[in-house]
Amino acid sequence: MDDHAVGSQRHLSRRSLIATGALAAGALGASAPVGTAFGPSPARAAAGVTKKVTIYAEQLPGGLFGYGLAPGQATVPGPLLEMYEGDTLEITLVNTTNQRLSIHPHGVDYSTESDGSPLNASFNNPGETRTYVWRSREMFAAAGRRFMPGSAGYWHYHDHAMGTDHGTAGVAKGLYGALIVRRRGDILPEKQFTVVFHDMTINNRMAPETPMFEANLGQRVEWIAIGHGNLFHTFHLHAHRWADNRTGMLEGPSDPSLVIDNKDLNPGSSFGFQVLAGEGVGPGAWMYHCHVQNHSDGGMAGIFLVRNADGSMPPGAEEAIHRFQGHTHTHGS
Amino acid sequence: MDDHAVGSQRHLSRRSLIATGALAAGALGASAPVGTAFGPSPARAAAGVTKKVTIYAEQLPGGLFGYGLAPGQATVPGPLLEMYEGDTLEITLVNTTNQRLSIHPHGVDYSTESDGSPLNASFNNPGETRTYVWRSREMFAAAGRRFMPGSAGYWHYHDHAMGTDHGTAGVAKGLYGALIVRRRGDILPEKQFTVVFHDMTINNRMAPETPMFEANLGQRVEWIAIGHGNLFHTFHLHAHRWADNRTGMLEGPSDPSLVIDNKDLNPGSSFGFQVLAGEGVGPGAWMYHCHVQNHSDGGMAGIFLVRNADGSMPPGAEEAIHRFQGHTHTHGS
Amino acid sequence: MDDHAVGSQRHLSRRSLIATGALAAGALGASAPVGTAFGPSPARAAAGVTKKVTIYAEQLPGGLFGYGLAPGQATVPGPLLEMYEGDTLEITLVNTTNQRLSIHPHGVDYSTESDGSPLNASFNNPGETRTYVWRSREMFAAAGRRFMPGSAGYWHYHDHAMGTDHGTAGVAKGLYGALIVRRRGDILPEKQFTVVFHDMTINNRMAPETPMFEANLGQRVEWIAIGHGNLFHTFHLHAHRWADNRTGMLEGPSDPSLVIDNKDLNPGSSFGFQVLAGEGVGPGAWMYHCHVQNHSDGGMAGIFLVRNADGSMPPGAEEAIHRFQGHTHTHGS
Repeated sequence: MDDHAVGSQRHLSRRSLIATGALAAGALGASAPVGTAFGPSPARAAAGVTKKVTIYAEQLPGGLFGYGLAPGQATVPGPLLEMYEGDTLEITLVNTTNQRLSIHPHGVDYSTESDGSPLNASFNNPGETRTYVWRSREMFAAAGRRFMPGSAGYWHYHDHAMGTDHGTAGVAKGLYGALIVRRRGDILPEKQFTVVFHDMTINNRMAPETPMFEANLGQRVEWIAIGHGNLFHTFHLHAHRWADNRTGMLEGPSDPSLVIDNKDLNPGSSFGFQVLAGEGVGPGAWMYHCHVQNHSDGGMAGIFLVRNADGSMPPGAEEAIHRFQGHTHTHGS
Repeated sequence: MDDHAVGSQRHLSRRSLIATGALAAGALGASAPVGTAFGPSPARAAAGVTKKVTIYAEQLPGGLFGYGLAPGQATVPGPLLEMYEGDTLEITLVNTTNQRLSIHPHGVDYSTESDGSPLNASFNNPGETRTYVWRSREMFAAAGRRFMPGSAGYWHYHDHAMGTDHGTAGVAKGLYGALIVRRRGDILPEKQFTVVFHDMTINNRMAPETPMFEANLGQRVEWIAIGHGNLFHTFHLHAHRWADNRTGMLEGPSDPSLVIDNKDLNPGSSFGFQVLAGEGVGPGAWMYHCHVQNHSDGGMAGIFLVRNADGSMPPGAEEAIHRFQGHTHTHGS
Repeated sequence: MDDHAVGSQRHLSRRSLIATGALAAGALGASAPVGTAFGPSPARAAAGVTKKVTIYAEQLPGGLFGYGLAPGQATVPGPLLEMYEGDTLEITLVNTTNQRLSIHPHGVDYSTESDGSPLNASFNNPGETRTYVWRSREMFAAAGRRFMPGSAGYWHYHDHAMGTDHGTAGVAKGLYGALIVRRRGDILPEKQFTVVFHDMTINNRMAPETPMFEANLGQRVEWIAIGHGNLFHTFHLHAHRWADNRTGMLEGPSDPSLVIDNKDLNPGSSFGFQVLAGEGVGPGAWMYHCHVQNHSDGGMAGIFLVRNADGSMPPGAEEAIHRFQGHTHTHGS
């Protein structure tokens, strides 16, 4: 777990940034493992700890803004943040820009001072540094046999102050990222991809510049999908599926959850799941895309490249990538 | 529970109307307890009973229409109606207006005469009184180990006859409300809020006129969220979360449900959940809003004011409310 | 089960086509049982088998295209395909048209050759015949107590190659249908209806030409709902409800699933459920419709005709059907 903990992401920043399908990673958005000692084993139990993270909000080329774990390393989306139920994250946000901005999380606990909203005067003025505290916890008993839910989930964070009191300009320009709160015992993935459906873009890019996510056959891959902006979307992944519940896996034979391969991904919502790359279907260039027809035609599509188990390219994949790079934005035959 | 039963809502009408975030409650939409002997205890078992309710459909200032439990008391949204699985509601709808209208419920059982649709000639002509019967029931065994679902849920009712055969004008003008069917043993709340996302409004109001819902720190608050109109929306509540299942609470450690704080709220859909006000985050002025950016910027936002446990104002809350009243409708800095 | 198996649908084609609410079945879209020895009993256990099906893609009057199980029998939507977890379907698609097209499934396993996408050069040129292989499987153990999900679900298939690389023209013109993968032990229905919400149409028709689905009081009816196109929709069925899980039924008293009667039905998504026709509410002409107000007003509504148990017409149903045929497309007054 150490390789995966947020506290250690600072020295893993280059790898974890790449893993999020970050803008800086180039046209194909090549991804790499977040950590090394990081197989499909149950998460280790641990007492709740407090981790301190410094995040830098920076202006990027092309009118974009990003969050990063070190100066000069901001990306779109920002770094993937993770914690276990019971942990606390102390986020020191350094605003290196000339804009008012903030960081507002979903799913975790925070006081009004850490709300990240102008409503509560919780934001960074230009050049200002401010600390936001995010807490999490396990489920706890309510009356009867029921439990008030804990914090575990596939969440996200975003600006809530640039442009409008809801951070509309900040979100539009790339100030967003994924936040995972795990329950102890959760299965850890080998690779992680952050996919943000945001107006007509994926991670603020359009095909063929959308991220190409890569894994080897059989690797346990975790997808975190986030919606933003003004439009409705549906996330579809070819040749893979997941349970529409907290983990994406069935809790047992009597788990009643829907199994799906297409899910609404609307502004402010997020979900996550794990698949075994190419399991049962083989390697290849598999599409992920918005299933709204004029969105996919307009560029909301990308490639999930499942390589052979040894990392080599499977037959046909190069040709598919070539087609993708040349044949997007088709609005009619 | 008596204070909460529909049969007794007639003499509780002022309080229950206020509790729904009713239009008449003023700009801040102050809310108050629905009942007094009404703590977080399991619901009492009871045999199915039939309750008779008279509802008055009335024209309101500003071109609105509303349902009310007494003449001159119509509100937007209409009164919160509740029943237990097995109960029957006999709704006598008095149409005091010059428009054709009806009342159509979701989730419960009714014959075609009580459908509330012009298709089945089930509506009130101008000035007409008509009775609609809504029944409910518990789950019952299907073949195998499965059960056909009972009626328990966070439902709603609305006009299905004004303007068009689908009641488009009636819904647009405020003829809608919440309907809860409880399963015996469900935990009862201390406060209840009805939130209707309807085109660019919340309960037919825009910020800063949207309802301000109030509770004291730790109170068990029930939210009922309803979607109407022509647009898609997502409901987000700051600093609180819920399980995406029937009750909003986990049924136990193996309940696989997603835990969320943002959910699609589209026309005809509804959901509900209970939170402990400010639990784990403290008191303050917490925002609830549509997370579609141009909807929140356009006025689909309001305040959930969590007071101190003794009812006094927490630090910063007055300032936040003041900001909210002056700084809405921001479409760019 | 034999009557229901895909392998035998070729000699059942007329009936199963009708059961899907097919375009060719006339304005009232009368439906009939898919099979005879087909009651509400648990599905029989069986080893996984491979079934071969030939599907003909054909041009239809009115600019439409359809899939069919025999030459000259293409319909919109296409035939309902079914399999059990573990089964394989070998689809031989005969393209009788002058357009590039394909067949792309959701929910099942396929290699890149059977992807149905131009990305993977998986399509039929005009006049070409090509075989697509769809496999399915049961859940299997992951690390810990969890299971990777199996294929069981209410899925669908559609063109992915006509007009654009995402099949936008093919989908728009009717190249879509339902695919069910059952888990062994699932309860089989007596009747089945496929409902596709596609832009402003239901099964590419608008009221009053939308399909009228028919059943006798108490019959176990299975609905398969599919979304396509560019718009968002919500599916609502009057006087019936279902659990928002894999089967639409509760797995037992502790199943935490939401019970709903209105659900988002957006492009690429699908769901299914079973109801007992008119159970608890009686026979009659019940509406199903999109609950987005300007969609239902614009023609996205139809009738679920629940006849008396002996098949005779219940009181008021003829009048309701007459009203529906004359009173649709009401945009005011």
